Amino acid sequence: MRKFIIYSGKGATTPDFIIKDLPGSGGRMDLNARCVISTLWLSGSMREDSSIYISLNGEPDAPLVITFNGGELRKVSPDERSISIWIKKALERKDIISKKGNWLETHDGIAIARKTFEELLEERMKKGSLYLLHETGKDVRKEKLNVDPVFVLGDHMGLPEEKVHTVEKLAEEKLSLGPETYLSSQCITIVQNELDRRY
Amino acid sequence: MRKFIIYSGKGATTPDFIIKDLPGSGGRMDLNARCVISTLWLSGSMREDSSIYISLNGEPDAPLVITFNGGELRKVSPDERSISIWIKKALERKDIISKKGNWLETHDGIAIARKTFEELLEERMKKGSLYLLHETGKDVRKEKLNVDPVFVLGDHMGLPEEKVHTVEKLAEEKLSLGPETYLSSQCITIVQNELDRRY
Repeated sequence: MRKFIIYSGKGATTPDFIIKDLPGSGGRMDLNARCVISTLWLSGSMREDSSIYISLNGEPDAPLVITFNGGELRKVSPDERSISIWIKKALERKDIISKKGNWLETHDGIAIARKTFEELLEERMKKGSLYLLHETGKDVRKEKLNVDPVFVLGDHMGLPEEKVHTVEKLAEEKLSLGPETYLSSQCITIVQNELDRRY
Repeated sequence: MRKFIIYSGKGATTPDFIIKDLPGSGGRMDLNARCVISTLWLSGSMREDSSIYISLNGEPDAPLVITFNGGELRKVSPDERSISIWIKKALERKDIISKKGNWLETHDGIAIARKTFEELLEERMKKGSLYLLHETGKDVRKEKLNVDPVFVLGDHMGLPEEKVHTVEKLAEEKLSLGPETYLSSQCITIVQNELDRRY
């Protein structure tokens, strides 16, 4: 299984964000939606072995995490608007989820939980190896990757310094994807392509 | 310079397409917009050496081509909605463009012309080498690429068979990006990453 965790610093934690203004009122929900597309879609098929966790840390009710699982997802279209509408629907259920961090499935392949970024990392580490995507890391093309890798990355602001330290302590390795600093969705595409070539 | 040409089989050729329905009424304008993002944006900067040509072949007034040039683009945000609004604004000017295929700049770094896919290929070949992106091609990581490459690709329907033959005749090489068939925007990201590693 391939997993991605994106830290969304301003990602909205209310279903009231405006679909016509995903960058502003959604706290860059457009970016999160593109990350979902990069993780799960191929041309004409879905990546059933992949899933993504969006750690939402924006106003007014952080922390929340929403996950999309390619093996179970149904009836979702790969465009920013559609995916954001599904995120909205998941957020509409946030008041009935447990404070203990249990997952609530809100649609086939989509679930929400109340947990911090750190709690999410710990949960995921139990089932795979963490890799931090960071421009100062080692070249992904030259590194060996464990089975069930979990790739952690930031949004347009990058991971906050303290979060970088946290992930560095937990991660197997810090990986760079090339000589440029890529958009989050581009990072995911490059990693998926690298994994496709190996397995 | 790096250039991409996308053949958009159903891309709307009217400014009346609905922003709330980019996949349907826009003829997959969401996909075209994501290709613009993949071509031109990095994290925190733009690729000033890159541009993309969208060959629009949908109803009701094909053929038209819209181009986005990273070296000149100003005030455009990297999300599907914003980019589609700029495409709409370019299409609003289509009735005043020449039938001879001359380019009309409709905004800094955005221009429109009335030309067929084939006319676009011929125009671009004069200034660079064409490469067809196709899953049956040779592995991009192993091939030498000429300077000023122009990469040609299809949308979610793929390039129609006859267009594949046309491009095959003109292209330097047919290139594959990995063992999967990727979304158009993902193809562009993978190629850009490969070029970044070389130059």
